[in-house]
Amino acid sequence: MVPRTGTTLTKPAISLREQFEQVRQLSETLCAPLSIEDYVVQSMPDVSPPKWHLAHTTWFFETFLLTPHLKGYEVFHPKFGYLFNSYYEAVGDRHPRIQRGLLTRPTVAEVYQYRAYVDESMRSLLHQIDDAPEIQALITLGLHHEQQHQELLLTDIKHILACNPLRPAYRDNLPEPYEHGTPTQWLKFLGGLHTIGHAENTFAFDFAFDNEAPRHSVYTQDYCLASGPVTNGEYLEFIEASGYQNPKYWLSEGWSTLQNEGWTAPLYWEQIDGNWWNMTLGGLRSLNMHEPVCHVSFFEADAYARWAGKRLPTEAEWEIAAATIPSLKGNLLEQGYLHPTASIAPDFQPYGNVWEWTQSAYLPYPGFKADAGAVGEYNGKFMCNQMVLRGGSCITPQSHIRATYRNFFPTATRWQFSGIRLAQ
Amino acid sequence: MVPRTGTTLTKPAISLREQFEQVRQLSETLCAPLSIEDYVVQSMPDVSPPKWHLAHTTWFFETFLLTPHLKGYEVFHPKFGYLFNSYYEAVGDRHPRIQRGLLTRPTVAEVYQYRAYVDESMRSLLHQIDDAPEIQALITLGLHHEQQHQELLLTDIKHILACNPLRPAYRDNLPEPYEHGTPTQWLKFLGGLHTIGHAENTFAFDFAFDNEAPRHSVYTQDYCLASGPVTNGEYLEFIEASGYQNPKYWLSEGWSTLQNEGWTAPLYWEQIDGNWWNMTLGGLRSLNMHEPVCHVSFFEADAYARWAGKRLPTEAEWEIAAATIPSLKGNLLEQGYLHPTASIAPDFQPYGNVWEWTQSAYLPYPGFKADAGAVGEYNGKFMCNQMVLRGGSCITPQSHIRATYRNFFPTATRWQFSGIRLAQ
Amino acid sequence: MVPRTGTTLTKPAISLREQFEQVRQLSETLCAPLSIEDYVVQSMPDVSPPKWHLAHTTWFFETFLLTPHLKGYEVFHPKFGYLFNSYYEAVGDRHPRIQRGLLTRPTVAEVYQYRAYVDESMRSLLHQIDDAPEIQALITLGLHHEQQHQELLLTDIKHILACNPLRPAYRDNLPEPYEHGTPTQWLKFLGGLHTIGHAENTFAFDFAFDNEAPRHSVYTQDYCLASGPVTNGEYLEFIEASGYQNPKYWLSEGWSTLQNEGWTAPLYWEQIDGNWWNMTLGGLRSLNMHEPVCHVSFFEADAYARWAGKRLPTEAEWEIAAATIPSLKGNLLEQGYLHPTASIAPDFQPYGNVWEWTQSAYLPYPGFKADAGAVGEYNGKFMCNQMVLRGGSCITPQSHIRATYRNFFPTATRWQFSGIRLAQ
Amino acid sequence: MVPRTGTTLTKPAISLREQFEQVRQLSETLCAPLSIEDYVVQSMPDVSPPKWHLAHTTWFFETFLLTPHLKGYEVFHPKFGYLFNSYYEAVGDRHPRIQRGLLTRPTVAEVYQYRAYVDESMRSLLHQIDDAPEIQALITLGLHHEQQHQELLLTDIKHILACNPLRPAYRDNLPEPYEHGTPTQWLKFLGGLHTIGHAENTFAFDFAFDNEAPRHSVYTQDYCLASGPVTNGEYLEFIEASGYQNPKYWLSEGWSTLQNEGWTAPLYWEQIDGNWWNMTLGGLRSLNMHEPVCHVSFFEADAYARWAGKRLPTEAEWEIAAATIPSLKGNLLEQGYLHPTASIAPDFQPYGNVWEWTQSAYLPYPGFKADAGAVGEYNGKFMCNQMVLRGGSCITPQSHIRATYRNFFPTATRWQFSGIRLAQ
Repeated sequence: MVPRTGTTLTKPAISLREQFEQVRQLSETLCAPLSIEDYVVQSMPDVSPPKWHLAHTTWFFETFLLTPHLKGYEVFHPKFGYLFNSYYEAVGDRHPRIQRGLLTRPTVAEVYQYRAYVDESMRSLLHQIDDAPEIQALITLGLHHEQQHQELLLTDIKHILACNPLRPAYRDNLPEPYEHGTPTQWLKFLGGLHTIGHAENTFAFDFAFDNEAPRHSVYTQDYCLASGPVTNGEYLEFIEASGYQNPKYWLSEGWSTLQNEGWTAPLYWEQIDGNWWNMTLGGLRSLNMHEPVCHVSFFEADAYARWAGKRLPTEAEWEIAAATIPSLKGNLLEQGYLHPTASIAPDFQPYGNVWEWTQSAYLPYPGFKADAGAVGEYNGKFMCNQMVLRGGSCITPQSHIRATYRNFFPTATRWQFSGIRLAQ
Repeated sequence: MVPRTGTTLTKPAISLREQFEQVRQLSETLCAPLSIEDYVVQSMPDVSPPKWHLAHTTWFFETFLLTPHLKGYEVFHPKFGYLFNSYYEAVGDRHPRIQRGLLTRPTVAEVYQYRAYVDESMRSLLHQIDDAPEIQALITLGLHHEQQHQELLLTDIKHILACNPLRPAYRDNLPEPYEHGTPTQWLKFLGGLHTIGHAENTFAFDFAFDNEAPRHSVYTQDYCLASGPVTNGEYLEFIEASGYQNPKYWLSEGWSTLQNEGWTAPLYWEQIDGNWWNMTLGGLRSLNMHEPVCHVSFFEADAYARWAGKRLPTEAEWEIAAATIPSLKGNLLEQGYLHPTASIAPDFQPYGNVWEWTQSAYLPYPGFKADAGAVGEYNGKFMCNQMVLRGGSCITPQSHIRATYRNFFPTATRWQFSGIRLAQ
Repeated sequence: MVPRTGTTLTKPAISLREQFEQVRQLSETLCAPLSIEDYVVQSMPDVSPPKWHLAHTTWFFETFLLTPHLKGYEVFHPKFGYLFNSYYEAVGDRHPRIQRGLLTRPTVAEVYQYRAYVDESMRSLLHQIDDAPEIQALITLGLHHEQQHQELLLTDIKHILACNPLRPAYRDNLPEPYEHGTPTQWLKFLGGLHTIGHAENTFAFDFAFDNEAPRHSVYTQDYCLASGPVTNGEYLEFIEASGYQNPKYWLSEGWSTLQNEGWTAPLYWEQIDGNWWNMTLGGLRSLNMHEPVCHVSFFEADAYARWAGKRLPTEAEWEIAAATIPSLKGNLLEQGYLHPTASIAPDFQPYGNVWEWTQSAYLPYPGFKADAGAVGEYNGKFMCNQMVLRGGSCITPQSHIRATYRNFFPTATRWQFSGIRLAQ
Repeated sequence: MVPRTGTTLTKPAISLREQFEQVRQLSETLCAPLSIEDYVVQSMPDVSPPKWHLAHTTWFFETFLLTPHLKGYEVFHPKFGYLFNSYYEAVGDRHPRIQRGLLTRPTVAEVYQYRAYVDESMRSLLHQIDDAPEIQALITLGLHHEQQHQELLLTDIKHILACNPLRPAYRDNLPEPYEHGTPTQWLKFLGGLHTIGHAENTFAFDFAFDNEAPRHSVYTQDYCLASGPVTNGEYLEFIEASGYQNPKYWLSEGWSTLQNEGWTAPLYWEQIDGNWWNMTLGGLRSLNMHEPVCHVSFFEADAYARWAGKRLPTEAEWEIAAATIPSLKGNLLEQGYLHPTASIAPDFQPYGNVWEWTQSAYLPYPGFKADAGAVGEYNGKFMCNQMVLRGGSCITPQSHIRATYRNFFPTATRWQFSGIRLAQ
């Protein structure tokens, strides 16, 4: 069992069976506020309908666990393998991604029946695998996979509701955010040879994805990181300084993207009668200047940093700094804000609030080997033309994030809870 | 009151109030077999979600009747005017057509509340307008408008269900179709000066749309029409004669459309293990060779006719012939097949089964004047690059069709219940 | 030999051999002002490079005359059939239309060698066919085909030069246009049964294309035509009355085209420092208010007519009126203006200046039969989604136009010399 | 004066004036085999017409040197700044890149006049700047800029000629390539802390682009590089092993690109009657199995490496290895093959033949600063979504390449002379 790198979390007291029940339940809890109609729609190609997420995560267990490992298991429906495979070429043909929002059937009720059927079978399997660490590892992978989809569920629900002219709220009873925050400070970190990455590619208890390994040496120069992320107020200065009108701050592809898409502010900002508003999971709110700016693309993060005379951190710089933090806390899913909040402590807070764009391209670590079999398609095949984000967001489950975690998205992506931490 | 042209239907015994109740009820009855999920989706740009049809037809009454004519009326929701305007430029801004399928809210339940609210107000208005023929005429227009959307509801539901790999049926209990039909005969009609079109543009009892007027003279040569439409079996001969591989049968734009879209058969035909199947509102059925071929584009109808050494009729030829038929009957919505059926009588049957492509472009009749006001956008502004179809289909309400009725669609349209009648 | 319909032109005194030499020479004369670079470019998909026109018209003679009919003929180059076939499916595979502008080879010099080689062979053939009327007819078709391409040469050259920010002139020495014109009058024509179309589909001396036949009866109502086309000054009133901002004047598809394309004036108009300029084959000129408006689409012609409270004529109305004119004259290619000119006579002038959009869709006449063989692809397969234009333009060769001539283009086309004649 | 890193080239014996004459002359010499027509065409968006390259490189000197620094200089033509600016936002508006191929004017002759005018003015300036190192540095930059366009000239000419069905050769008299090569060996390099990059960002004699600086430390593990690039024969094994049909070798975006583009082999390979041919600057040749495979995208290079059980090198690994080579030689432009040739020596040959895709994303080195002013747009703004290539190709001028040189292209690019060197 390999110690988690860069955090000192002790082993969770709960068993794999308990984890399974908790994770599977949470997906359904997150969907509880939805109307049936909300489950069906794909508001853009990157978004999947909520019922698709519920079914796809279930398909993962059916396909990679139950069918090969539970004797006598019969698939719930012969076409669901076609409908709910996301991108696994090795598993066969699949429904086109951009047509996920055209499927009215199976109904939401049938998807929940599918979940119940698979969960019941999984419980049988979980009772048979005490001495089968490979199967335990695959189940753990399936749970982390579902946690990723829990985050996607909320990002996608937000997008679906925000594109509706009625601007409906996902929940009306979210906690009040902080009104004020503490000023950002610059924290200095020494350069030299450091070690980053997860020590071993394992699916067991101390879980990490294959793309976090191998642990390896990197050389950095001395650097400073901001203690907290860039705020809405700070970002608004960039907008008011004509940042979106001046190509000199932008990468060439960023500038053409801005022009083609008509970007003038982060996603979900809108100006009504001269005032800025912000669509949130709690509905349309007046823009809070102390909250971290969110839903910016890499292009915007990079342009802001250049305008501010700073830069984005590399993923190595971020991870080396995060590894100095003794405990993992922050505004994560469990806090229940479902929105970035102003910082009320001056400490360095690498986790939660917003995913932080780095200036590192998403590439294999030296010696990277994708996992064997179909699950090897999980991460490795996306290693080009994306940038790494670090630290988790206000909708990331706490047990899902860690110092070595590498999230990745294309440079124009804005619907994720992505923000900016400056370096220099 | 102007007599209906070309048919001898007597005046319906029912009042406008009764018509209102019947038509409004039918829309909801047609949606009864749907799951909530089915109401939400737009499976291609031409399709609208069923709940959008239900709301849009309601918006028509709210906008053109209640708001201007019912004292003290308050709109149900201030944003619904934006959401449910289809294409009326004169009525203000509107939601983009291709994004109708992204709207999860209002929910289906809220749309039914909207209908109930407007219906109740309409009942009040209907009690106040005995001496207001213009308002009666507008209500009549609204009812015929809703009948058009009843037909669209079924075409769109069929498309939504057919694009689902599960091939779900709209209803499992449709009546059995005929297994055999009677052979087609050629009927001869004499040329010369004839009069076609509706005698007057009126919204009153003897209703016709503005595009059916004025009644006017046309000169035709002698011609023959087939007694019935082309069957699946006849069309299959065209396919098996490599009709879809030979450009000489096709208009140039038809040939390029065929190649771009990959057409090899009518819409909803599929070949499984060498056998032909046909997706219907009753689910996937083995192809019935005696039924009229349906869901073909103008390009396919025209190519088939050229291959067969015939041609399509002009709309004048069709209307002159239909005016010889003493009574309007056929496989229309009320028959309940919801699918074209084989003919069991050798008579000339112009109505029902399939809309019949003509070789006439959809253009204004000599002296055409669009209605005044926003409802003048109903027909006239679409008078280019479309072809006329005549006769109604198996999903057209009987009280909606007549000899002078001009339906129109672009040349590549296939999701309508459109078929082929030959002329020579 | 069938008499020409609607004109009283006497038989030309020149032989087919002389016609051949004149027509072939004219194509080269029209290209004389070009630089080599001008011959190569395809400035939009509808445009073909001038050298392609020169080669394609030559390929027509090589393919349809020399290869089948001149004993011992060897094609100039084995790949030219692939490169210079336009759209004849029956003749085999061809180079994609949109890639015509990518071909730097054959060079312009080689294309002229190709022309010389084919012309020399054609002279041999022309000496052998005195008693072969079918071959004579095919040669006549080839010459009229080349005349069509002469007009396209000039429209395409104009487009190529106009899209160049340097706005180069095709010729600097065009004659001065008239500064003033005579006012338009309304001419009345009686309705009733009339006969239009060309009496016989023949390739012989009294030439007409297959789409002009058969001659047939049509019924019209009384109507008026304007004596001359709408002028730039009249059209400018429409622009200044916000005609391009008001959807009520436009067909639905016209309005969306206008918005997608950003149309605010006819093609080749540009406003510089508040003044209107007009790109012509003579370079950029100040807009002459008395000249006919040119380079408008059907959508613009139709919208202008609706704004003016008039309409466009049908093609039957146009032809019936034109047939009343004893002699064919007008501002045609031979006048040398290469641009529409103000009218200095109040007479009805149907020919020349601008092609006149009609409200008639381009459809087969009753009893139409396309010519047999590959040349049957000439006209018939384009009979959908286009509108008829009549009368020729300032770049149409005089011997090419006649009362029955049916030109046709899609409703959004603007690069042709197309204008507006009003009817009511 | 900063010593060149990783090579031991002595200072060239020629002055800046001589360099200017030589570089400017070479561009024209490279165009000598072209017909006028070849100068005009843009065969895809990435390609520029040869005359555009000739004018753009001239515009660079006019804009950045003559206008600001030569007293009394008048621009050759007021519109050329608009026409021949490539992407410098700071210099004002510009002609759209994708429309470069629509410009028939200025003619080729006028472009050569432009070059002569600017060259004459530059000679004046070159006589005045002996004590102006900044201006000397800018001229040096302009010359290296022109060298880059010399390489682009040949890649673009190749593409223009190759897309022509006649497959014309650029030159018929290229030297015969080698028929056989030596086998590849694996060369081992030790890991540890190394230093890469150019020591200082300078425009002076020892020239490097800003993106090659700063020189900085990197940590590598032990690694092996192949002594030579992958050959056509080796790559053909990948094709014959169904490499283009099996998604498991491909990055996800690579697989979808392959499917969308229909890739089945490298660009310029074609199979005729079962035999493989290769379009070259010398025309169509039978595929030589011993030559390096060329015109592959990053996706293909990466897939081949995965299939072979190897990987691509990082740019650091490449540069550390190249720095061990005492002298810079290889199949570069001056050798005159204009095509990759088989290796006849077993030595490690990092330079020439084909640009070698690395697995390194094109990102700023630690501490990177773009040059000040408009020329700062040269490199930095392209630092996302591209991969680094190293070593130059058979069409790179020898004085243009060095160990620290970072070329970069998007992952789907194939028209460059790009190939594969394996690492492990």
